Amino acid sequence: MNIVLLGSGNVATHLGRAFKLAGQSIVQVWSRDIEHAKELADTLASEAISDLDDIDRSADFYIISVKDDAIRDLASKLKIGDKLVVHTSGSTGLEALEGVSSHTGVFYPLQTFSKNGAVDFRQVPIAIEASNPEDVALIRAIADRLSERVTELSSAQRKALHVAAVFACNFANHLFAIAQELLETENLDFDLIRPLIAETAQKIQLNDPETMQTGPALREDMEIINSHLEMLDDKPELQELYKKLSQSIVNLHQQSRG
Amino acid sequence: MNIVLLGSGNVATHLGRAFKLAGQSIVQVWSRDIEHAKELADTLASEAISDLDDIDRSADFYIISVKDDAIRDLASKLKIGDKLVVHTSGSTGLEALEGVSSHTGVFYPLQTFSKNGAVDFRQVPIAIEASNPEDVALIRAIADRLSERVTELSSAQRKALHVAAVFACNFANHLFAIAQELLETENLDFDLIRPLIAETAQKIQLNDPETMQTGPALREDMEIINSHLEMLDDKPELQELYKKLSQSIVNLHQQSRG
Repeated sequence: MNIVLLGSGNVATHLGRAFKLAGQSIVQVWSRDIEHAKELADTLASEAISDLDDIDRSADFYIISVKDDAIRDLASKLKIGDKLVVHTSGSTGLEALEGVSSHTGVFYPLQTFSKNGAVDFRQVPIAIEASNPEDVALIRAIADRLSERVTELSSAQRKALHVAAVFACNFANHLFAIAQELLETENLDFDLIRPLIAETAQKIQLNDPETMQTGPALREDMEIINSHLEMLDDKPELQELYKKLSQSIVNLHQQSRG
Repeated sequence: MNIVLLGSGNVATHLGRAFKLAGQSIVQVWSRDIEHAKELADTLASEAISDLDDIDRSADFYIISVKDDAIRDLASKLKIGDKLVVHTSGSTGLEALEGVSSHTGVFYPLQTFSKNGAVDFRQVPIAIEASNPEDVALIRAIADRLSERVTELSSAQRKALHVAAVFACNFANHLFAIAQELLETENLDFDLIRPLIAETAQKIQLNDPETMQTGPALREDMEIINSHLEMLDDKPELQELYKKLSQSIVNLHQQSRG
C-alpha cells in the first residue's frame, strides 16, 4: 500500500513509523515547512514536499495529520478525487473533509505521542469512522495492520473520548507538573513521588477510579484541607485548583451514594 | 521487636502486614471500634483492644495511624513514658505528639493504599522525622527493615510532599473518574482509555512532566478548547475545571518560557 502523509508533528511521525514497520510504503511527506517535511521523510525513505500541487494522486491512502485548527484550511485546498482520505483528529468531525474526496474518514489513534520515545502501536486504540460501510471496512483493514484495538466510533463518541483523554492524560500530566513544582519549593526530588504516580495509574488498570479514590477530600478532612490551602496561600492559582478539585471529589462521591 | 499499632485503616493495615512480613511482632491493635481492631488483629495474630488503658507499656514501638484530625485527640489521652511513638501522617507536625512520650517521631509511608491489593513495601518511600538524632537513627533502622527508600524530611518538607501527592495521586485519580463519567455518557468503555493512562504515568517515570505535556491547552488550540467547553455545557462543574486546568497549563508553559 502506498501512503501520503500530510503533516510532520508527533502523530504524523509515530503513524509514519508504525506504517513503515508494518511494511507499508510512505511515498510522500507533505508539510507547509519543507524542512519539517524533509526531517520526517528522511526517516521514512520518503519524498518531502511542501507544495500541495506536488501531491502524488496515485497513492492508495492519504493521511491528514496536522493541528486540529489547520485541518479545514488544508482540506479546502485539497482535491484527491476518489482516493481514501482520513484525518487523525479526536475532536474534528468527518464533515471537515467534505469535498476533498468521495471517500473520506477518520483514523484517530488514542495515545499520547512524544516526538521521541517508542510506542507499541499494537496496543494503541484506533477509533475509525466513515460515512459509508465500504470505507469503514477499508479503513478498518488498514488500521488492523497497526493495532489490535480498532473500534468504530461516531463523531460524537470520538469527541467524548477526546475530552475524556484531555482530563485523564493532558490534565493529569499537568497535575504531575504541579506536584513537581511544589516539591521543588522544598528542594525535594520528583523521584520521591514517581512510585506513587505509577501505582495510582496501575490501580485503575483493573479497577474503576471512583472506587480507588483516597485522600483528604474524600474523607472531608477539613483540618488537612485547610492546612494545605494555607500552604498554597502564595500560589492563588493552585489554591483555587485545590479547592475546585476537592469540591468535585466530594460532589462525585455524594452523587454516587445518593 | 514488639509493636503496638493504634488504628485500623488502610495505612495501619498495610503497615501491620509489612512489619509482620519483615518478621516483627504486632502485639496489639487498638481501635476505638473493637470490631475494627479485631478484624485487623486477626490477620496479624495480634491482640485487639479498644480501651487505651489496656495498652501494653512494654512494647518497643508505638505507631499512631489514625485519621489526621484524630491524631491530636488521641495523643492527648496517651502517655507512653519514654518509648518510641510515631504517627504516620503526611500533613501533621511532629509537635502533635508532644507529651505522649519523650521519644516521638514521624513515619510517613508515601503510597496510595487501598484496603485490598498488595503493595511492594520495599519500593514505598518512607519519610521519617524526629527531634533528636538518636530517635532519627532508631526510626531509620526500623524503616530500613520495610523499605529501600527511607528519607529524613522536615515537617515543612513532608507537608509539601503530601500536598504534591494530593495533586499527583488523589486529584489525578479523580480526573480518571471524570474521564470514565464522560465516556459513559456516550456508552463507551473505560478500557478505551486505560492504555493512555498507563502510558501517561509511564512517560514521567524517566522524564519531567512539564516536558511531556501535550494537548489542546498547550497548543492554545482555541477551536478545540471551545468545542470541548461546548460539549460540557450541561456539566458546569466539569466545564469550570476544564477552563481552570487549561489556563493553568498555559500559565505554567509561559512561566517556564519567560
